[in-house]
Amino acid sequence: MNKDVRIALDAMGGDHGPSVVLNAAAIALVRRPDVEFILFGDEKAIAPLLTAYPALARKSRIVHCEVAVKMTDKPSQALRFGRRASSMWLAIDAVKRGEADCAVSAGNTGALMAMAKICLRTMAQIERPAIAAMWPTLRGESIVLDVGATIGADAEHLVDLAIMGAAMARIVFDIDSPTVGLLNVGVEEIKGIEEVKAAGRVLRETALPHMRYHGFVEGDDLGKGTVDVIVTEGFAGNIALKTAEGTAKQIGQYLRDALNHSWASRLGYCLARDAFRALREKMNPARVNGGVFVGLDGVVIKSHGGADAESYAGAIEVGYEMVRQELLGKIREMIAQANEARAPAATATAPAP
Amino acid sequence: MNKDVRIALDAMGGDHGPSVVLNAAAIALVRRPDVEFILFGDEKAIAPLLTAYPALARKSRIVHCEVAVKMTDKPSQALRFGRRASSMWLAIDAVKRGEADCAVSAGNTGALMAMAKICLRTMAQIERPAIAAMWPTLRGESIVLDVGATIGADAEHLVDLAIMGAAMARIVFDIDSPTVGLLNVGVEEIKGIEEVKAAGRVLRETALPHMRYHGFVEGDDLGKGTVDVIVTEGFAGNIALKTAEGTAKQIGQYLRDALNHSWASRLGYCLARDAFRALREKMNPARVNGGVFVGLDGVVIKSHGGADAESYAGAIEVGYEMVRQELLGKIREMIAQANEARAPAATATAPAP
Repeated sequence: MNKDVRIALDAMGGDHGPSVVLNAAAIALVRRPDVEFILFGDEKAIAPLLTAYPALARKSRIVHCEVAVKMTDKPSQALRFGRRASSMWLAIDAVKRGEADCAVSAGNTGALMAMAKICLRTMAQIERPAIAAMWPTLRGESIVLDVGATIGADAEHLVDLAIMGAAMARIVFDIDSPTVGLLNVGVEEIKGIEEVKAAGRVLRETALPHMRYHGFVEGDDLGKGTVDVIVTEGFAGNIALKTAEGTAKQIGQYLRDALNHSWASRLGYCLARDAFRALREKMNPARVNGGVFVGLDGVVIKSHGGADAESYAGAIEVGYEMVRQELLGKIREMIAQANEARAPAATATAPAP
Repeated sequence: MNKDVRIALDAMGGDHGPSVVLNAAAIALVRRPDVEFILFGDEKAIAPLLTAYPALARKSRIVHCEVAVKMTDKPSQALRFGRRASSMWLAIDAVKRGEADCAVSAGNTGALMAMAKICLRTMAQIERPAIAAMWPTLRGESIVLDVGATIGADAEHLVDLAIMGAAMARIVFDIDSPTVGLLNVGVEEIKGIEEVKAAGRVLRETALPHMRYHGFVEGDDLGKGTVDVIVTEGFAGNIALKTAEGTAKQIGQYLRDALNHSWASRLGYCLARDAFRALREKMNPARVNGGVFVGLDGVVIKSHGGADAESYAGAIEVGYEMVRQELLGKIREMIAQANEARAPAATATAPAP
């Protein structure tokens, strides 16, 4: 029997605070009985809520924290003002100290990434961390990274992103060799930014294990689900993510307006209500919840700030899977394989002495 | 009475060729009687079609061209192989030679931009051209540029884009001072790429006439219509555009699947059919047709390749308006004002001798 997965929860993060976090933990515990929780936050707020979940209470302990990072705090504020007393910092720090296997927070993304970087530091041979998002597609889901941890990327960082995304995809999609595409403004090899072209050459030529390099993909391939993993630097990735969320909301509004237009359309809506409920579910940006911070020496999961208990439970389960299936080990293994694969090439092109 | 606006049409461009182009020209002529056309393309294909539109025939002349640039041609191919005999080149060249006031083509975007740059060249004091797209929003429409003419942008180019977008917005929205936002990964002034921050400082400090600088906007502001003009460099702009198109298609597919799910949903669909027709119209990416090439010494309009006659007529009318309302003159005037506004600042910060 495996040891329990120990999950540190920032109980104060998110728009709804501890009530949703505890409800989510209780849901996750039913589905994954081999899990235990450390709940970081205001004990006076958490303890009374916890009495409603006796099974959860048996597998949890509360660590009281004086400070809660606000959703509106700038990362710099969160880092300056009492950061080491905050539930967000202490949840991450539990991972650092080996008391938890991963941390989950629905708090401010910028603050969470800034603290995770300082506390956990980046993995050996990885220069910068990234945020990997699950993207709903017509084929199911894809992983898109980086959606905004850092801005700009050289070819080396894009290759690291490909490796980290593929390692995560092996776990999430349970496949040995996920397909990987580089986001670009055209699919021909001559198109796009130099860094993207250079990363494409490396991925094509080294043919790394546990990954099938597909080539360049464009913005509309995100929704199509053309590949399992889409790699992009964080500026374009963040803009793509928010543009898609905005477009989904926009079309949702058009749909509501259209269906309110006449008595016939309102009656039609009533008849097709179940269909629209399913559609709303699919269009919900929080549906596939749980952004994974990759490239750090520890597993940190970001839940949507507005996530409900069901959706937040999904983020906890993402964390559980990343620990159980050894995300960090898979990334380290693939980075080592990449270095091996590229070493002979480097030797071959070295100038003669 | 004003002189007619003379429009050069690349009759061979687009997925449907001359039949749609002529039908579109006939539609546009009904709405804008003060227009005349030069039809560039295969005379044997165009002449028989033109007999069906006697009013159009009276206001058109055909210029036979030996070559048609294919939708699949790479820009480099289109430029190498017989480019000066192609309908695309000759339509642009008519603008250059003063025989037409603007050119419209539904052909290959890359080839059209490459030819337009070589033939017309960039305006004085503008370093690089851009493609400005009309973006449907919850408030109506916005102008987004650059959606893919060039990659990367320094602060200077971003300021040029703001000016050119504002000049176009004055015409399209018929307002004196459109609002302008810079696309970024956060709205705080400290966030994002250096170039974007520097452009923000210039726009805030110079407070140019005919434009109200709003600040940074994010990907989801595109669909909201937060500002009249959204400025971004071409890589992120192209990815945002294609991501939005892809998301709209994805949700359209979800909607079809949902409505086909049960007899009740199918009946509901029948009742709400008119509502869905209106929705489909709103979600059609070709609805607001007519990408404007800005920054060139001449007006060139790109129609969607798959545009139908109604939609292509929209692109022709965009060209008409840009000529009638003097897009080039407005851009030149605003560039001059910007140089004036910035001159004292430059002097003030010059080091003492």
